[in-house]
Amino acid sequence: MQLRLAIVQTNPVFGEVELNVRSALNLMRSTPADLYVLPELFNTGYNFIDGVEVSRLAESTSGPTFQSVAEFARDQACHVVYGFAESAGRIYNSAALVGPGGFMGLYRKVHLFDREHLFFTPGDLGFRVFNLPFGNVGLMICFDWIYPEAARTLALKGAHLIVHPSNLVLPYCPDAMVTRCVENRVFAATADRVGREDRGGVDLRFIGKSEIVSPRGEILGRLGADEVGILVMGLDLHEADFKKLTGYNDLLVDRRPEQYSA
Amino acid sequence: MQLRLAIVQTNPVFGEVELNVRSALNLMRSTPADLYVLPELFNTGYNFIDGVEVSRLAESTSGPTFQSVAEFARDQACHVVYGFAESAGRIYNSAALVGPGGFMGLYRKVHLFDREHLFFTPGDLGFRVFNLPFGNVGLMICFDWIYPEAARTLALKGAHLIVHPSNLVLPYCPDAMVTRCVENRVFAATADRVGREDRGGVDLRFIGKSEIVSPRGEILGRLGADEVGILVMGLDLHEADFKKLTGYNDLLVDRRPEQYSA
Repeated sequence: MQLRLAIVQTNPVFGEVELNVRSALNLMRSTPADLYVLPELFNTGYNFIDGVEVSRLAESTSGPTFQSVAEFARDQACHVVYGFAESAGRIYNSAALVGPGGFMGLYRKVHLFDREHLFFTPGDLGFRVFNLPFGNVGLMICFDWIYPEAARTLALKGAHLIVHPSNLVLPYCPDAMVTRCVENRVFAATADRVGREDRGGVDLRFIGKSEIVSPRGEILGRLGADEVGILVMGLDLHEADFKKLTGYNDLLVDRRPEQYSA
Repeated sequence: MQLRLAIVQTNPVFGEVELNVRSALNLMRSTPADLYVLPELFNTGYNFIDGVEVSRLAESTSGPTFQSVAEFARDQACHVVYGFAESAGRIYNSAALVGPGGFMGLYRKVHLFDREHLFFTPGDLGFRVFNLPFGNVGLMICFDWIYPEAARTLALKGAHLIVHPSNLVLPYCPDAMVTRCVENRVFAATADRVGREDRGGVDLRFIGKSEIVSPRGEILGRLGADEVGILVMGLDLHEADFKKLTGYNDLLVDRRPEQYSA
């Protein structure tokens, strides 16, 4: 089954959850797709000043952001992955997967970046893959890109596509995701944000460049550094089943863990 | 201690071991350095037709190629890493480290590429790091680049510099090594070959682009796709000691292996 995959590049206004959710869903409504990927913390913005602020903006997996996204997914008969600050006793930097029937799964960011350590508890659910009608989708968030173990774990669990909500500030990730795809022969969809958040003396600029990359490392589409927008592509995720780089090389089978002991 | 690191990009004539060794050493003699990196199988060429041919061209770690390189290393008071077909009961695609005092260590290619599976036994020594006067040097060969576990294992064992003799035919490696350096905050030196070997119905073209990359992913120098040549750079390998990407992120310490179980 062909997947129409959409990555949504946003520029949220910090703290304006209702506005941010509405803007994103309007953009998505204009562009039919089977799976939409939204950025990390797409509803709140990123640059929290303190824990009080995070607590105020965090939501449960059945909060108002979920309700709006779930309504969209039901109406459009689609799937959506979105990043949000998850309130669950502790607060996590999470991504939820929502389908036409509602909540389907959760990933909690394992590798926190910079000041996120002040606001979030590191993820405790491992890296998870969900079997969807169009293929197997694995979740990771933003800075997880720098740990090859993240994408590798998802590939070993059978992911065809790595869905990757992000708020990138370092320049490396868009090119590094090409390596992640080549080394695992998977698709990847990075949904990043654009814009700037200068709050509490911390000035952050986000690099955009949301992209979809193929198992052969082709950048199938990449958005700009500054634009809000949406990119949709038709993909056959089962291309990622073919791990044979040559007649003698099966990429994942040929791993030699016994040689990797440090 | 500042390291003068040289990568040597060659175009060996298949089977002409004496000529190939002499050409490479002449090039090296013209350019003083502390550590020279030669390509994979630099003395024999790459595109073997059958096992008989490999057996004929393979050498022990004290064979004629070693003798010539060791003489050079003694005379120039330098270190050299070179790739060769190693005869040791079985035949390995190996790299030897030679210093002013002679043989210092060996790596046997763990991840064989394509028809190499017909000619070589997969490496059985793991990934090894050698403590040299200018820093810790880890060895991997060519296709090992596609397995993030290779560079990661070397980084976890303390490598400042990954030395990477290669005979690249796929296009991905030069950019992928940038990711390897960024994700491990290490230097890397890939010594590739150029030219074409059309033998026994198998036509291979080598991509050149030998390069030195910094722990911040900067391509400090990259040779062309067709030229024979040598690139020398002055490096302080201890830059690779600093794994703190931010005040809250220590790249290797922050790995979370318990979250990576597949």
